[in-house]
Amino acid sequence: MRDPLEQLTASLSRLPGIGRKSAQRIAFHLLRDQGLIDELTGSMNEARRLLHECPECFCYTTEEVCSVCRDPSRDHSLLCVVEEPADALALEQAGSYRGIYHVLGGALSPICGVGPQSLRMDELLKRVGTGIQEIIIATNPTTEGEATAVYIARALKDRPVRVTRIARGLPVGADIELADVETISRALEGRNEI
Amino acid sequence: MRDPLEQLTASLSRLPGIGRKSAQRIAFHLLRDQGLIDELTGSMNEARRLLHECPECFCYTTEEVCSVCRDPSRDHSLLCVVEEPADALALEQAGSYRGIYHVLGGALSPICGVGPQSLRMDELLKRVGTGIQEIIIATNPTTEGEATAVYIARALKDRPVRVTRIARGLPVGADIELADVETISRALEGRNEI
Repeated sequence: MRDPLEQLTASLSRLPGIGRKSAQRIAFHLLRDQGLIDELTGSMNEARRLLHECPECFCYTTEEVCSVCRDPSRDHSLLCVVEEPADALALEQAGSYRGIYHVLGGALSPICGVGPQSLRMDELLKRVGTGIQEIIIATNPTTEGEATAVYIARALKDRPVRVTRIARGLPVGADIELADVETISRALEGRNEI
Repeated sequence: MRDPLEQLTASLSRLPGIGRKSAQRIAFHLLRDQGLIDELTGSMNEARRLLHECPECFCYTTEEVCSVCRDPSRDHSLLCVVEEPADALALEQAGSYRGIYHVLGGALSPICGVGPQSLRMDELLKRVGTGIQEIIIATNPTTEGEATAVYIARALKDRPVRVTRIARGLPVGADIELADVETISRALEGRNEI
């Protein structure tokens, strides 16, 4: 039989961003706190049981249609395309976006075998005919995210819709001295009048 | 009703070293992986069910007495005092220690109301009469850990046992330029002939 502490550490190591040392620290913490084990067990299973994808934007929701898609005060002519539900939540938390979302479910990655058919591209193209005037492509500023943005822009080329891409540049609070060359190039290209 | 995603993020944020952003990332990861939820639920509850404290050293074990205390090839005259079971595991993983352990269950901290009676001091003093020749105090090199080390050394002053403290100095691979003043002072004080 495998040591239960070793097994727990191995399971925790499977979580994103948790290395072996962190997993071990969390495991020892859990052993001292049955209440926390019960709370985690409950909230993991409740989240999984109650949340499902919104049939319009594919974000997680407990309702039939999510609160953003349902909100008549949001701008339903402005659609922001993101890779994952977590990206939509980050945009919501920033607080300034008043349009709606479309979750692709990933980004194009030929190496990992993710082609357009693995993403919610058909669903996106179907939504374009429903009064959308601008599509903001907010895929990640990574190789995969950029390739996906280009793919979407091409697919929408002949549609009567404005297609934009979120700005890439220096993150607020960053130090130019420490920024990578790609980010500096993007920041120069995307410069604005002040 | 609280949002289940928010509730799961809040529960995960209670784990040591997990901030809000990490918790959110883990929550979204779990929502996509029921298998991982089941594995974590199982391994948390199995660990809690199967592991208990060794009655001799107070490390976690699935057996009546832990494998270190039971091992006749270990040096039972050499006792290493640590704050937590995780510290004993870290020492075991380093691989060079061949003695046995004693887990105090914390360190003295008047501010947090942790006095000697909250630690396994009586159990330690009882063990001294059982053939122990050297006690290595391996509490953390923090204010609380150092205070605890001094307290233990005083409590053992009149006992026929050698009391030592693990070395404090520069961690292997560190940069003197970036080390803090306390560490540099300790490294100078603890210098050895080469």
